[in-house]
Amino acid sequence: MDARTGLPVVGMVGGGQLARMTHQAAISLGQSLRVLAASPDDGAALVAADVRIGEHTDLAALREFAKGCDVVTFDHEHVPNAHIAALADEGVTVHPSAEAIVFAQDKERMRERLAALGAPVPRWRRVSSAADIAEFGDEAGWPVVAKATRGGYDGRGVWMLDHRDAAAELVASGTPLIVEERVPLRRELAALVARSPFGQVAAYPVVETVQRDGICVEVLAPAPGLPEPLALRAQQLAIDIARELGVVGLLAVELFETDSGIVVNELAMRPHNSGHWTIEGARTSQFEQHLRAVLDYPMGETSLTAPVVVMANVLGGASGGMSLDERIHHLFASDPGVRLHLYGKQIRPGRKIGHVTVLGDDLDAVRARAARAARWLRDGE
Amino acid sequence: MDARTGLPVVGMVGGGQLARMTHQAAISLGQSLRVLAASPDDGAALVAADVRIGEHTDLAALREFAKGCDVVTFDHEHVPNAHIAALADEGVTVHPSAEAIVFAQDKERMRERLAALGAPVPRWRRVSSAADIAEFGDEAGWPVVAKATRGGYDGRGVWMLDHRDAAAELVASGTPLIVEERVPLRRELAALVARSPFGQVAAYPVVETVQRDGICVEVLAPAPGLPEPLALRAQQLAIDIARELGVVGLLAVELFETDSGIVVNELAMRPHNSGHWTIEGARTSQFEQHLRAVLDYPMGETSLTAPVVVMANVLGGASGGMSLDERIHHLFASDPGVRLHLYGKQIRPGRKIGHVTVLGDDLDAVRARAARAARWLRDGE
Repeated sequence: MDARTGLPVVGMVGGGQLARMTHQAAISLGQSLRVLAASPDDGAALVAADVRIGEHTDLAALREFAKGCDVVTFDHEHVPNAHIAALADEGVTVHPSAEAIVFAQDKERMRERLAALGAPVPRWRRVSSAADIAEFGDEAGWPVVAKATRGGYDGRGVWMLDHRDAAAELVASGTPLIVEERVPLRRELAALVARSPFGQVAAYPVVETVQRDGICVEVLAPAPGLPEPLALRAQQLAIDIARELGVVGLLAVELFETDSGIVVNELAMRPHNSGHWTIEGARTSQFEQHLRAVLDYPMGETSLTAPVVVMANVLGGASGGMSLDERIHHLFASDPGVRLHLYGKQIRPGRKIGHVTVLGDDLDAVRARAARAARWLRDGE
Repeated sequence: MDARTGLPVVGMVGGGQLARMTHQAAISLGQSLRVLAASPDDGAALVAADVRIGEHTDLAALREFAKGCDVVTFDHEHVPNAHIAALADEGVTVHPSAEAIVFAQDKERMRERLAALGAPVPRWRRVSSAADIAEFGDEAGWPVVAKATRGGYDGRGVWMLDHRDAAAELVASGTPLIVEERVPLRRELAALVARSPFGQVAAYPVVETVQRDGICVEVLAPAPGLPEPLALRAQQLAIDIARELGVVGLLAVELFETDSGIVVNELAMRPHNSGHWTIEGARTSQFEQHLRAVLDYPMGETSLTAPVVVMANVLGGASGGMSLDERIHHLFASDPGVRLHLYGKQIRPGRKIGHVTVLGDDLDAVRARAARAARWLRDGE
């Protein structure tokens, strides 16, 4: 507890945009997020009052950070699992736990566990040689998707292999791999839930996520034209996974929609890009919900605040031209209703530097406004 | 400009809840509010990254604070007017200006100026003796309202005088005073607008404010049953006042609704309690709007996000009983849709420690939920 306010102190490991937006939510709850950032220039470190600088791979730094925190949680999945377990052994309350987060850290463990639970997953296999991949590809059909079991994000650590020969080079790199069938998907969906230690679960409406080059560029809430039974099935699947894996906090289940139903692609156990729309688009934002969950507060309402909500990521563009500040001027002049969220990041081409959200009634119109705003901020044209 | 982000630095003098909530809005715009707080325990100082400690009455502290700020603005009206003028003379961009904010600092100047503009004001007079008050009361009718020309807020600096004898003691205190007729009001309203240096003005829907013991306890948006012509007149009045007084930033015009129309009660030139509902209840919150205005960004949309929005202030209750943290648990369990905003303040009876906002369709139901939430947080029962 913070002695000045009598309210809990949540510590978040990682100082990126997820911690930055979680701090905004913490303020409303009377709190101030404690952030472990790698650099004082990290997005959350620029705006939070209680910032410690340290590496998330440094157990001593994690121990020091955890002192005085009521709960420690994460803005990414890259903290070594053994460090999380060590903190818990030493009496620190950590959510999600080492036992849960391993399924968001290790794709092989995730696939094994989900398959054991009977959750729908693609055909997959652990592989250790080019011959293994060739055998799998010949069985499941080419191309196949190879994934590093650990450390990938935003399209990194994922390779599409068109034929047997492509496998050799990848295997030679020594990266532990699984391969999966290439799912014939109609589109990608995401089901976001939050679960408290008490076991209460809140589920957000299922959304459609649009990817380009492995990066989420757009989220449509609710997923347009998704049949109610399929939406309920996706929510129930996320709820079941959260319970079975013992997740406390947010769980984002990335899904493929196919002709025959849904298949789980990835899991994330933290605020997730597919949930940024909730800041204005849902009664309770994912960031507040994550805090409520890890603090064992009762969950907040998850209903939509408008019939259609579209979030578009703002990527860094080529350097030169108008400054970001000038682009904001023009954007606000051209669309006074767009909601802007910038992450305080240095602009680099292709880097997520913020997002925009638009609410309304008509999907095409709302989507066009969001896309235009994101493009404008990227290109200044 | 912040060298790390290329985005502007706004400095706010005063570290209370208005600065705290403005910081939340600044984060979304890619910024980090710089705060001049009297104490490191001030509500905004607990959550902002860039906090300077100093007194708002200390010109040297203000000068030091202003260095590197693109704009300096205020969370209260208590900075000496001459200090604001001095900063501007030295090249600091200050919004609102000394010339404008004086009308929110000095009730006599405000009444004079509004009367000269032809704005509807109560009968009033500057008084310097008990005889002056007696004469005014005999003309305008008893009781009369005496107000300190400077420094009052939340009911302080305002006295209801029932008869001639009550005036003597007040005058003897030496406080510069005006007296006003007691307006036969139906209810109180507030019209909130924001104006940019470019002269663009955005007007929020007119709200009803409910006061108890001189403190705003509840805001109903939009003002229930307010005839459209009267709502438009109130908005136009606020727009005219903002323009005529040269206000840059927010202007809240507190109004009395009478049988014959509206009368101006007070002016505030900053985010205002009557606008807290805009955080969830309007497309652009008053806090973001204030930043947009002082930065000369184009204004954001002001439309409502729900048919009915009710904000209720949370006051500190008697000590003892459940902790604030326990009260939050119970509140969230009983109403998952209520939006909570706590200010990080020490609890003292009657002190504003936060507010709650409820959105919906039915005024009575929404109002009851907000009142119940605020009462629960105050009393724990």
